Order: sequence, then structure tokens, then C-alpha cells
Amino acid sequence: MRNIHFETDYIKNPAGSCLASFGDTRVICTATIESKVPPFLEGKGTGWLTAEYAMLPGSTGGGRKRRDGAKRDGRGVEISRLIGRSLRAAIDLASLGETSIVIDCDVLQADGGTRTAAISGGWVALYRALQKLAEIQGTSGPEAYLLGQVAAVSVGIVDGELICDLDYYHDSRAAVDMNVVMRDGSLVEVQGTGEKNVFEREALNRLLDSAEEGIARIREAQRRALGIS
Amino acid sequence: MRNIHFETDYIKNPAGSCLASFGDTRVICTATIESKVPPFLEGKGTGWLTAEYAMLPGSTGGGRKRRDGAKRDGRGVEISRLIGRSLRAAIDLASLGETSIVIDCDVLQADGGTRTAAISGGWVALYRALQKLAEIQGTSGPEAYLLGQVAAVSVGIVDGELICDLDYYHDSRAAVDMNVVMRDGSLVEVQGTGEKNVFEREALNRLLDSAEEGIARIREAQRRALGIS
Amino acid sequence: MRNIHFETDYIKNPAGSCLASFGDTRVICTATIESKVPPFLEGKGTGWLTAEYAMLPGSTGGGRKRRDGAKRDGRGVEISRLIGRSLRAAIDLASLGETSIVIDCDVLQADGGTRTAAISGGWVALYRALQKLAEIQGTSGPEAYLLGQVAAVSVGIVDGELICDLDYYHDSRAAVDMNVVMRDGSLVEVQGTGEKNVFEREALNRLLDSAEEGIARIREAQRRALGIS
Amino acid sequence: MRNIHFETDYIKNPAGSCLASFGDTRVICTATIESKVPPFLEGKGTGWLTAEYAMLPGSTGGGRKRRDGAKRDGRGVEISRLIGRSLRAAIDLASLGETSIVIDCDVLQADGGTRTAAISGGWVALYRALQKLAEIQGTSGPEAYLLGQVAAVSVGIVDGELICDLDYYHDSRAAVDMNVVMRDGSLVEVQGTGEKNVFEREALNRLLDSAEEGIARIREAQRRALGIS
Amino acid sequence: MRNIHFETDYIKNPAGSCLASFGDTRVICTATIESKVPPFLEGKGTGWLTAEYAMLPGSTGGGRKRRDGAKRDGRGVEISRLIGRSLRAAIDLASLGETSIVIDCDVLQADGGTRTAAISGGWVALYRALQKLAEIQGTSGPEAYLLGQVAAVSVGIVDGELICDLDYYHDSRAAVDMNVVMRDGSLVEVQGTGEKNVFEREALNRLLDSAEEGIARIREAQRRALGIS
Amino acid sequence: MRNIHFETDYIKNPAGSCLASFGDTRVICTATIESKVPPFLEGKGTGWLTAEYAMLPGSTGGGRKRRDGAKRDGRGVEISRLIGRSLRAAIDLASLGETSIVIDCDVLQADGGTRTAAISGGWVALYRALQKLAEIQGTSGPEAYLLGQVAAVSVGIVDGELICDLDYYHDSRAAVDMNVVMRDGSLVEVQGTGEKNVFEREALNRLLDSAEEGIARIREAQRRALGIS
Repeated sequence: MRNIHFETDYIKNPAGSCLASFGDTRVICTATIESKVPPFLEGKGTGWLTAEYAMLPGSTGGGRKRRDGAKRDGRGVEISRLIGRSLRAAIDLASLGETSIVIDCDVLQADGGTRTAAISGGWVALYRALQKLAEIQGTSGPEAYLLGQVAAVSVGIVDGELICDLDYYHDSRAAVDMNVVMRDGSLVEVQGTGEKNVFEREALNRLLDSAEEGIARIREAQRRALGIS
Repeated sequence: MRNIHFETDYIKNPAGSCLASFGDTRVICTATIESKVPPFLEGKGTGWLTAEYAMLPGSTGGGRKRRDGAKRDGRGVEISRLIGRSLRAAIDLASLGETSIVIDCDVLQADGGTRTAAISGGWVALYRALQKLAEIQGTSGPEAYLLGQVAAVSVGIVDGELICDLDYYHDSRAAVDMNVVMRDGSLVEVQGTGEKNVFEREALNRLLDSAEEGIARIREAQRRALGIS
Repeated sequence: MRNIHFETDYIKNPAGSCLASFGDTRVICTATIESKVPPFLEGKGTGWLTAEYAMLPGSTGGGRKRRDGAKRDGRGVEISRLIGRSLRAAIDLASLGETSIVIDCDVLQADGGTRTAAISGGWVALYRALQKLAEIQGTSGPEAYLLGQVAAVSVGIVDGELICDLDYYHDSRAAVDMNVVMRDGSLVEVQGTGEKNVFEREALNRLLDSAEEGIARIREAQRRALGIS
Repeated sequence: MRNIHFETDYIKNPAGSCLASFGDTRVICTATIESKVPPFLEGKGTGWLTAEYAMLPGSTGGGRKRRDGAKRDGRGVEISRLIGRSLRAAIDLASLGETSIVIDCDVLQADGGTRTAAISGGWVALYRALQKLAEIQGTSGPEAYLLGQVAAVSVGIVDGELICDLDYYHDSRAAVDMNVVMRDGSLVEVQGTGEKNVFEREALNRLLDSAEEGIARIREAQRRALGIS
Repeated sequence: MRNIHFETDYIKNPAGSCLASFGDTRVICTATIESKVPPFLEGKGTGWLTAEYAMLPGSTGGGRKRRDGAKRDGRGVEISRLIGRSLRAAIDLASLGETSIVIDCDVLQADGGTRTAAISGGWVALYRALQKLAEIQGTSGPEAYLLGQVAAVSVGIVDGELICDLDYYHDSRAAVDMNVVMRDGSLVEVQGTGEKNVFEREALNRLLDSAEEGIARIREAQRRALGIS
Repeated sequence: MRNIHFETDYIKNPAGSCLASFGDTRVICTATIESKVPPFLEGKGTGWLTAEYAMLPGSTGGGRKRRDGAKRDGRGVEISRLIGRSLRAAIDLASLGETSIVIDCDVLQADGGTRTAAISGGWVALYRALQKLAEIQGTSGPEAYLLGQVAAVSVGIVDGELICDLDYYHDSRAAVDMNVVMRDGSLVEVQGTGEKNVFEREALNRLLDSAEEGIARIREAQRRALGIS
């Protein structure tokens, strides 16, 4: 696994923020609190969490990435939705009241695993924002809202070898790769995506074993950054 | 499992087409051949396959669905990408030459499992289009391009019970649900999505067992519709 | 004239629906009831009807039709407006109260005459929706809202011969063609469009005679489908 | 009929231009020559003509009109297409070679009949542009391209009385109204639009008689402005 | 300096309007009153002024200018913002109450200096609209809202010579050019834009001297048009 | 003045990059080389430089900033254009050949002066990219393309006192403020923007004096970061 690091409060304005580094991959995650909910939830007394993922134009190799305009980048939309689902699994939406939390994940530098860095860093930013929300709402702390600790990792098989937390070099050579999101010891989302290859149940199981180990280490880094035991 | 049926050549203009019915869910799948490739593949001698998924405005319960305009529906983007990846796994892109195949999946009526009906029906439409392409290119038949038979199913656990091919009623009550795409006996894509719940490895395994059985039956229906053994 | 057929309740979710077939042309028409009106009518106690027309990507010959994005297809906008005007002529908007009806017409397969199939099928879907609205509002039936029966047909002169209900082959060869919309025995909209040719008053009159006959037959098919005398 | 006036060369930069006044309605029409054709005509040796219609934000009563952005105004799209079809009937596209003419019609002040002023003024601007094109291409003059003189008028029945060239006051009170486009003595486009009312064949005929007279007067004003007999 | 002229009430529908001519440059300026403010000002009891600038497609030399669609023209956005800031400096926003004024500046013919013609003409249209607002609100007159008279001019150095109010010929040859906006005798906005060249403090001072003189003459033309001393 | 710092090569993928810090304001500037030019320059043998400025959603106080979609943020468009003009003044476009340089400036944290930090940091990123371009093209170094060193600063008068490099607190209280861009000792762009106030020539001169001093210090920081004397 690459060196994993979370730097909290990297940006001062939002309720929570974090710079997540997975090797050379660096993602700024911010969590903003808004005192309103989307139309479909108005008047229901429950909250919402949504996420947006984007890459800075200079973040990626192989040429500048265009900014989204009228035509949104499909990959970015798909990843935004994955981050949103993953972090909604971290909290009890009803406990928020009619409050929304927006998680923004902006990739400064991309070297593989940006979506798993975004989910893991997003949870750290979310935790900081819940600390602030607890102050505002006078609750006991982030635990008043949290269902668990969410982290994610990518795993793959490259040249027959199991790799946890793939960088771009490995990712582009992987026969199979999978993104795994866990809340504490349980699975939140498993995405094994084929595209170039198919895989067997046995490989799936080995990849999940590896992901569980990797996530345990990411969880430690998250807790260390937040100063919680 | 619900009643599964594929009606080939439902629409006469495209190279291939199929009406896929999974119970009350009905999806029109068409496959169009275009003699060009996206810019990133120009001059490389290889082909491409892309997919678009959309719901007709009246297809869904709970009110009319707005059509996409400048703002694209995120869920539709995500599903379009899933269908594209799944069906790209069905063919050897290099064998196409600089030819693209566009799979359009339009939901006439939605009652759960539209994405898996779209992938399974999309494969049938693709097969028909490859028959036409074989005639045009003078190759031996669809086998000149195909890597295997792709089908997909959704599985979930509802009130503690394993259900294969969930309708809307079950889908909205499922504690866990997963979409599984297979090519012949191997996995192409596994998407277990949590949102409301987390799940354990043991549940994942039971769901995969059930999906394998369900996909076997869908494969039979695909072959029957195409008149292949 | 081609074989004309309307299949009611083709889609189960909307208040009214119908599959309109004019020869090989097939259009799904749905009517959705919404309990709100556009801003310009708010608080005026009257209702509204609007329509949207679109072609499925695989519906047409000569290559795949792109879906609308930020740039809307001008032809589709023009036809949507024609359908809306034609069906607003069918009902007394004030009788609806602050209720909107949205008519969606999606072309599955195009072989000429899609706009007239959409208007004629749209009226059938509208009728079904008004039956449902009558139940909801406790009125006497569709007659509480209807001003008459609306149907439309295209007519043209091809190689000097008068043709009613043009398919694509005739449409592309017509020296003159005209779309005629009638409510019962009166004209709602007459659109004779030149583009490639001009025409004389005498031709206009012969075309209108032919359209009146054709519409009489479409009206019968509409009533048969709805089981009304 | 209102006072009709065309002022040629109102704008100096385009190949042709004209300020069309129908009473208080004033529309700037410009014709620009472009030495390329749309993709669907490339390499076919024939030309094209297209039109765009828009209203200045301050042109209309009842509040400022928003400018088009990502969402285009449906009425404007419909009128743009009508102007394009009408003026394409004025010229032999093949005679242009691979040249496009773009007609822009911008409404400075709206008081009814903007689309018929735009078509009639558009023809004047087109004529001026064809004079310039004839110089460029070394042809005999506009006649080398023209199939005839195109003009348009709106007619309606207001309080039982026939009115030719309706202003806003009449237009909003008309039981029936119709836009008629003619090339010399023949019909190019007839659009009787119902919306609020239906009409009979007899009314249609009276309206067409009135339109023929009105168009004769508009044709005189066009020729006077261009200094042709 | 070129001939400067303002024709008030050029368009009858908006509260205020003016045709501003700076030589061959002609800009229609309209001022519309709206009884609402943007969301960020709601409930604050103060008003707002915003501006939009656009060029008609045929206004400019060197080919037809495309209309804005989903992608807005950056230059137009920048100029719209400049006009808005300049004219907000002309009025005491708090005095308006929750009323907005929208200034639309549409360039009919462009020959250099369109933005300064738009600001100067926009002030004339604004003055007329404030006369109407004073009637509506029963205040003493435009003075109840106005902080001063705003006018603008472009100045540049062409072949070593100072030119005030540059036409296109001069503008395209200027080594330095600057737009200056003044309210009465004070500066509102100074924009010296380099792009092709840099300039020294001494040139800046000479350009400002020239601009002050030019603006004095524009102010006279504004007052003459409005009939105020 | 606040603490000014430029960290070069902050992002590894683009040809040049820099993190510019002006106090708490932090902007990532990247420079990407593209071997093509915009259509209006094709075949002319000269190059181009363009810039895009955006704020990360969490960068700003007072709530989350929405990302651009179909509707672009006007302020961002205006600033992008200012950065582009300023940095085009730094280079001899003809010397680039048919090469474009794209400068992206993304604000991580906003505390006033983001546009001047973007210009100054953009020049540093540009310098690094020109070093790379010199290697690719085999020229003598950045000097083969550079016309000078570009830097920018904001200056204002707050409570009667001259402040150079305004933070948000000062910016929001300034009676007058001005952005000044210089290339070496000459002016590139001077933007004194009024909005809330007007100002006199004397203030303009004091502000320019202060800006010249501030820019001298920024120039030192730029050179220190690049290790040039």
C-alpha cells in the first residue's frame, strides 16, 4: 500500500475539510453545512448528504482535462454518486433535522485511486463538519449523527499479483480491479468493474480479503488525523 | 423470478433491436452501427461500443419524469456507463475495425430491474447488429466479434429472504441489493450498493449464488429469442 | 390510407396512455395529470395542457438520431408546440381547475406522419386521463372537460395523385403536403408547408377534402379503441 | 392594413439588411453570406439558407423578455423554422454553389405580426445579399438565384370582421387567425392556428382571399424599397 | 470625436429607452422596471440594477456573430458586468425599494466604442425609467434616486497621437487604449487594457485628460436628448 | 502587505505549476502546453495563451459556491479574461509557433486578491512551462518567448488609508480599489472599479504609486521561487 495521509482543516472556510493523500494522489475534501434540504425532502424533518467530485484541469497526465460546462463528464457524475451513497451510509439522516451536508472532492493530482481517496477523505471532512454541527445544534458530538466510520480502497490483480491501493501504473495494467467501501467491519459498496476482463468468484474473494486489510490501515490514518482513538 | 422475455427486431430501422420484458419492466434496446469511432480512437484500427439509457417520461410511477436537457440526470448517466462497460466486455473491440456500435436502452415501463433488463436486452440487440455487421464485412458471423454472452440480474434480501430479479415493490424494501453482470460463467461487474444498509461477506456470497442461477435462466431466454442453441 | 390502430393503456403508470400505429409509424402517447399550473396561470383557477414530442434514437432510418441535450432539436420543439395547441383545442381549460395535463409523445418507429399519429393518439391518452380526472374530481366524466374529439392527418400530392396519410416514401416525394387537425367537423390547425414547392388554392381545397375523409376514419379508430360510440 | 415600410441597408456590415415596419412592429432583417454549408450538404455542390428569429428583451409589452440561454424559447424556434422554409422557397439552392445564407430577424418593437414582417423583410435583405453574391460570383444578378418574390401576412377574424395584418390588439382578440406566405401568386405556407377556437372551410377561404390582397400590397412596398419594377 | 447622438423613447414598450449613436456605432438601450429583486437582496428593502449587453448577429464586420446559447460569449459577459457596475454608481439603490432595473444594451451596428456607447446611452434610458418610476412611486422625480450623471468614453494612442472615442479602424491600430467611466467630475471605472502593449504612467495621465474632455461633450448630448439643463 | 509565497511544481503532471499564497488566499496555477491553436489562428504560424479561473466550492466564506454548469459564473468569466490578457502580455505569441498554453487558476482558499494572486502565480507556472517548451523546441530558454515579468496586485483606500494587497476584510470596506498588472516597470492593465464609490485623479495616482511598490515585492518572490536572479 502507498503512504496514506489525511490533513484536516486544510481549507478554513467550510465546516470541515481535509487533504487526502494516497501516494501521489491528492484530493481536497470539504464538507459544507446548509440549512435546507432538496425539494423531495422538504417538510419531512430529515436531512440529506450529497457529494460532488471533479478533477482540476491540470491534475491528470495525458493532457489537460476540460472543465464541465453544459455537458457534464459522465465519469465524474458516476463517482459523485458513489461518494454520496457511501457517505450517506455513514450517518443517520433523520438525526440531522432539515440540514444538508455537501461533500466536495476536488482532485489536485491524480495517480490512481482518486475515488477511494475522496470517500475516505470525505469521511474525515464530514466528521469535522459534524463536530461543528454538534456545537450548533447542542448535541453530544459527531456520535449523535454517525452510524460508523466509512473508508474505501481499490484492489486489483496485476500480473497475477494482488495489489491493494492501485496507483495509475498498476490500475492501467490490472486484469481485474475493484473498489470496496466499508463502514466499520461491514460492506457498504462493492464495485468490481470488468471492462477489459472478466473474473471469477475466487478472485473476488481474494480481492475482498485484501480490501479489508487495506481499509483497516486507512481507518487508522483517519482516526490519527482526527485525534480520536 | 419474474417472467423474462426478449422480442427481437421490435424496431425495424436499427441494425439490431429487442424489446426486453422482465415482468412489468419493459425496455426497448437498439443497436446502431456507425462507421466512425470517437476521437480518442481515430486511426488506431479498433472499434468502440457505447450505451445510452433513458426513461420515457410516463414510464415511472410517482409522477412524470422530466426529460434531460442541459442538466443530465445523474442516475441515467451512471446506468449508461454500466451498460456500456458490460457490453464492451461482450466483444473484441479490435475485431470491429473503426466501427462504433451504439446501444440505446429506453425504458417504456419501469417496475424494478431496468438496468439489468437493459444489459440483457442490449446483448440481444447487439447480437442482431453483429449478424448484420458480419454480412457487411463478410465475416463468418457474430462469433467473429463476440467474446461471450452477457446477461445481468438484480438480487436482494427482502425481509430476510433472498429474491432474484427484484420488482419495484421488492427493490424499495430490500435490505441489500446487488446487480450482477456475467459473461458466460464469469463475472463482468458486481455492484452491491448500500445506501440504506451495510452487508456482510456471507450475504454477498448468497446473493452471488442466486444471481448465477438467475442469469442462467436469462441466458436461455436470450438464446431462445435469437434462435441459437 | 394505412392501417390505423390505437392500443389504450399501453403503459400502466400514467393517467392515460396509448400506442398509436399509422402503418409502420408507432408512437407512445401518455397523459400525466399534475396538480399545479405554470407560473403565468398561478392563482387564476384555470388549467393547462402542454405536450412534448421526441423520437427514440433508433426510431428513424438514415442513422441514429441524437438525443436532445443543451441544444434542443428545432423540429421537435415545433412539433411539440403543434401537439400542445391541437390538444388544448380539445378541452375547456377552465374546467380543469389548477390542474395541468402533460402529453408525451415518443416515437418508437418513424415511417412518416409521426406528428399526426401523435396528435390523434394524444387525444386517446388524454381521454383516458380525463376519465381518471373525473373520478378524482367527482365530475360526470370526460365530457365535463372535453370540447370535442381531436384527430389529425397528413395529406399530399405525389406524382399528381392525392394521398392521405403519407408514409416516409410518399412524404419524401410529395410536391405538396399538409397537416390538418380537426375537432369534430371543424378545423383546428392547417399547416401547408412548401419548402420545396409552392401550391395553388385549388390544390389546397382538394387536400382539405381528402383530409376530412381521412380524419373521419381516424375518429372511428379512436372511438373503437376507447369503446365509445 | 397598417402602414408597411422597408428601409434597405439599415445595417452596413452584412451583405443585405432591411428594417421592416408593419405599423409599430419593427424588425431588423440581415442576410449574411457564408462560404460553407452545413455538414449534411458538404460536397453536394448545393447551397443552404437558414434563419434565426429573436426578440430584443425590451421589444415586447407585458414585461421584459428573457434572452435565450441553455433553454431556447420554443416560440422563437418555431418561427425561425417558418422563416427558413419560407425563404428557401424563394431561391434555387443548387444555384448558390456551396454557399449558405443566414437570415437574422431581430424584433426591435413588437406589436403583432412579427413573423410576417420578418419573412417579408427577410426577402428584401435576401435580395440585397443576392445582388452582392452576383457581383462576387459574376452572375447576371439576383435573378440567377431567385425563384420568386416571397411575402407574408397575417389575417384574422375579429368580432366577425375580416382584418388583414393584425396588430397586437386585434391578434389577442381574433377568433381565428392565419399566417399566409406566398411566392408571387402561389402559396408557400398556410398556417391557420386554432388554440382558442376552431374554424370552418368557408372562413379559411375568406381569410385566404384577404391575405392575397394584403400580400399584393406588401409586394409593392418590397419592390419600391429595392427600386425594382 | 465622432458625432454623438441619443434618441430617447426609441422603443415604446420599456419604461425607458434610447438609441445611442457614436459615429457609425449604434446601440439600443432599454431600461425595464421589475418589482422584485434578486434572491440575495430579498427582504432587505433595497433595490438592484443589472445590465445585459449583446451584439446582433449582423452588427459586426468580419462575419456573422453567433448568438449565445448554452455557451455564453465571454466578452459579452465582461461588458455586461462593466455596464452594470457603472450604472449602479449612478443611483442610490436603497432609494428604489425592492425594485430592480434591467438595462439591456443591444448593438445594432458596431464600429468601435460599443461599451462606452452602451453605458452612456444606458444612463439616458435609466433616466427616462426613473421619471416613470417617480410617477409610480409618487416621488419628486429622477433626482430622488440619482447620485449623478454617468457617461463613458474610450481613448487611445494611435501612431503616437491621442484619439478620443475610437472607431474600429483606430481601435485596431491603437498602441494603448482605455475605457473611462465618470459620474459627474469623478471617476467610476478606469480600464486600461494592454493585451498587445504596455504603457507608462505618463500616457495614462494624458489619456485621462482626453477622456475628461470627451465625457464633458457626451454629457451635453445626454442632457440635450433628455431636455434637461 | 501580506506574506507572499510561490511554491513551484506543486502539481506534477502539467508542464508548469505553482501554488500562489497571498496571506490566506491560496491559488493553484497550472500551465499546460497544447500543440494546437484556436480555429481563428490555424495556419498563421503563431501561438496563443488562454486562462481559466474558478473557485473550489469550499474556498469561500458565506456558503458553498456552486460549480459552473450550463450557466457560467459571470465574475469568473471576467477574471479569466483578465488573466489571459495579462499573461499574453508576457510573451511573444509568434515565437511559440502553433502552440497554445492554457493557464488554469483554481482558488483553494479565498481571502481577497484571488485574481492578482492568480496572475502573479500564473506567470510563475508559465515560466516553468516555457522552460519545458524550450527543451522540447530546442530553444535557448524561457527568454526565447518571454517579453517580461508579469505580476499584479490590488490596492485600495480603506478608512482613508492606503492599503496594498487587500484581504477580504479590507476589500469589503474599501472606498476605492484597483487592480494593477505590470510587466517589468510598465503598466499592462489598470482596473479601478467603482461600484459603491467614485474616486478622483489624485487617489488614482496614490494607488498606482502603492501598486508599483507592491509589485516590486511580488516580483522578488516570483524570482526567488524560480531561482532566477
